[in-house]
Amino acid sequence: MPAIDFKVIKQDGTTAARLGSLTTPHGTIATPIFMPVGTQATVKAMTPEELREVGAQIILANTYHLYIRPGHELVGRLGGLHEFMHWPGPILTDSGGFQVFSLGELRKITEDGVRFQSHLDGSYHFISPENAMAIQEALGGDIIMCFDECPPYPSEYAYVEKSLGLTTRWARRCKESHARTDQALFGIVQGGMHRELRERSAAELMEIGFDGYALGGLSVGEEKELMYEVMGYCAPVLPVDQPRYVMGIGAPEDLIEGIHAGFDMFDCVMPTRNARNGMLFTSFGRVNIKGAAYAEDRSPLDPECGCYVCKNYSRAYLRHLYRSGEILASRLNTWHNLHYYLNLMTQAREAIGAGRFGEFRKEFYAKRFSL
Amino acid sequence: MPAIDFKVIKQDGTTAARLGSLTTPHGTIATPIFMPVGTQATVKAMTPEELREVGAQIILANTYHLYIRPGHELVGRLGGLHEFMHWPGPILTDSGGFQVFSLGELRKITEDGVRFQSHLDGSYHFISPENAMAIQEALGGDIIMCFDECPPYPSEYAYVEKSLGLTTRWARRCKESHARTDQALFGIVQGGMHRELRERSAAELMEIGFDGYALGGLSVGEEKELMYEVMGYCAPVLPVDQPRYVMGIGAPEDLIEGIHAGFDMFDCVMPTRNARNGMLFTSFGRVNIKGAAYAEDRSPLDPECGCYVCKNYSRAYLRHLYRSGEILASRLNTWHNLHYYLNLMTQAREAIGAGRFGEFRKEFYAKRFSL
Repeated sequence: MPAIDFKVIKQDGTTAARLGSLTTPHGTIATPIFMPVGTQATVKAMTPEELREVGAQIILANTYHLYIRPGHELVGRLGGLHEFMHWPGPILTDSGGFQVFSLGELRKITEDGVRFQSHLDGSYHFISPENAMAIQEALGGDIIMCFDECPPYPSEYAYVEKSLGLTTRWARRCKESHARTDQALFGIVQGGMHRELRERSAAELMEIGFDGYALGGLSVGEEKELMYEVMGYCAPVLPVDQPRYVMGIGAPEDLIEGIHAGFDMFDCVMPTRNARNGMLFTSFGRVNIKGAAYAEDRSPLDPECGCYVCKNYSRAYLRHLYRSGEILASRLNTWHNLHYYLNLMTQAREAIGAGRFGEFRKEFYAKRFSL
Repeated sequence: MPAIDFKVIKQDGTTAARLGSLTTPHGTIATPIFMPVGTQATVKAMTPEELREVGAQIILANTYHLYIRPGHELVGRLGGLHEFMHWPGPILTDSGGFQVFSLGELRKITEDGVRFQSHLDGSYHFISPENAMAIQEALGGDIIMCFDECPPYPSEYAYVEKSLGLTTRWARRCKESHARTDQALFGIVQGGMHRELRERSAAELMEIGFDGYALGGLSVGEEKELMYEVMGYCAPVLPVDQPRYVMGIGAPEDLIEGIHAGFDMFDCVMPTRNARNGMLFTSFGRVNIKGAAYAEDRSPLDPECGCYVCKNYSRAYLRHLYRSGEILASRLNTWHNLHYYLNLMTQAREAIGAGRFGEFRKEFYAKRFSL
């Protein structure tokens, strides 16, 4: 019996968007959904209760960071991530591949795996597909990811082709070594910006067979149009009855486009990281809260928003907190941005449920650029 | 009619401790009480709702910092501190004197006031008793403080004597220029560690007449025994029927000693600042959460504590958050430390109510040093 159960509840009438329900060992998720990123076993500046309040259903934790500190074995001995971080809901862990490949000069790839140096202390480490599984089993997420190679952008066709072969072989080793039956394992489609390679990667992974499929290697510097194109031709070749996930995406409009293409799951540090930098998402577009225009502005950040921050604080106060470097600035800004993202997903699901996602998408763009 | 109303509800049987009730324009406070410090119009890392949850009844805001940024006039135009920071309860503002005198070389004292440079941008400013009142009136606290000179420690007797004369003349000017009838004004007793000077300062201030009296110039580097001695001989010369406040105090044991001497109000950055440095207060003494001993410790920080942090998180997780530099570390540590301080005040009030503060004080020390 698979660790997760996914059902498409409703297919939108005129777009590829779909409303789904994903049941995991720690709860059922309505899709499409955005997963806040909890890199070091905490979504920065938020408590688990607050994550629930802003509508988070599932969060992502970064395998690489937790492997480095405090160590996956320690987390395992402490009862796994759910208990460790006091988050009883579903958790997805990435494979660590993306972070390891981001280390650049600090890592060396072989058929067997990747040798790399810790970004914290320069110590040497080696991750193979097999121990990527062991690490994620110790962390204990509901959904874990295959260890993949994420080629840089741009890369030569030949390099991307060779790389996706390695990703496929690693995916097979991941599936063979994954032992925990209470965790779902997703494959990661690579292939750069080349349609043929993406389709080949997807076909090879589907032949191995996974509980869900993700697109990796996007949002790595390519133009948005190109990213949308890749999402557009990848979704139709993935199984209809399994969850589809775009990793590391993205801006609000990227989520709308991903849903439009038929994807169900997304994650990105954008709402949380931008919050800490004073960049806030609103129904009328982006706001840089440090702007002098807000110095005496008693109105809420987004008058159409019903979140705790918009109900209780003025733009002037948010600006003061940000300029003063206060922790409460990071807290309130993160709260609002995550609420914005998760509320956007709620609205998208409602629109699909009503068979009007196409109109919803048009309204989103019209409103956003109206001011 | 005075802005505040203070009643002694019960005098402890064998000590000078007293249980009181202080009614302000923004609510009634049970005393003795500790006031969390919200330097820049936010108690660092906490929301107002969380402050209520940990038992805060009144908070302190720093006039100097708010004068510098965002500016008292701006706060005034935005409706005052209560509205600005979304804290509907009582607020006390200090006079800015202590911060200005801490600037050292950046300030120059004359009979008229103090000229100083901003710690942020080096710009020149001048604060007199009159504009210290105007600034605090714009900020809108329920209780405001006279502008005083805080002599450094140690200081020559002659300097302290001269200084307290200035503090008295400034206090008179503060009282004369203070116009808002919905704010209480407290005098600040100076006089260093000299009993005669402290008593003279108190007498001069009482002759002018204030709504309450504070001890300034303590916790400036003197031995604890000396601080306790000053509190011990100052309390009896202050009016029985008015609130008595020791400024900038202190460690938990300092609060116990202050209450024992007959003081009602305290404030200090210690619980919040120490929290951000990983130093936590527990019923069995202080804990440095970064210690390796806590790496795999699944027990709560303080098994006797009922706060949100101790109910939901392990020492191992708190240590991980602190070592990882996470915002949640500052949040949870601050939450716990403020709960500890405010719960200690609740217990002290209960002990006074039961006429057993002396025993409570003994138990506090016995328990604390038992491990």
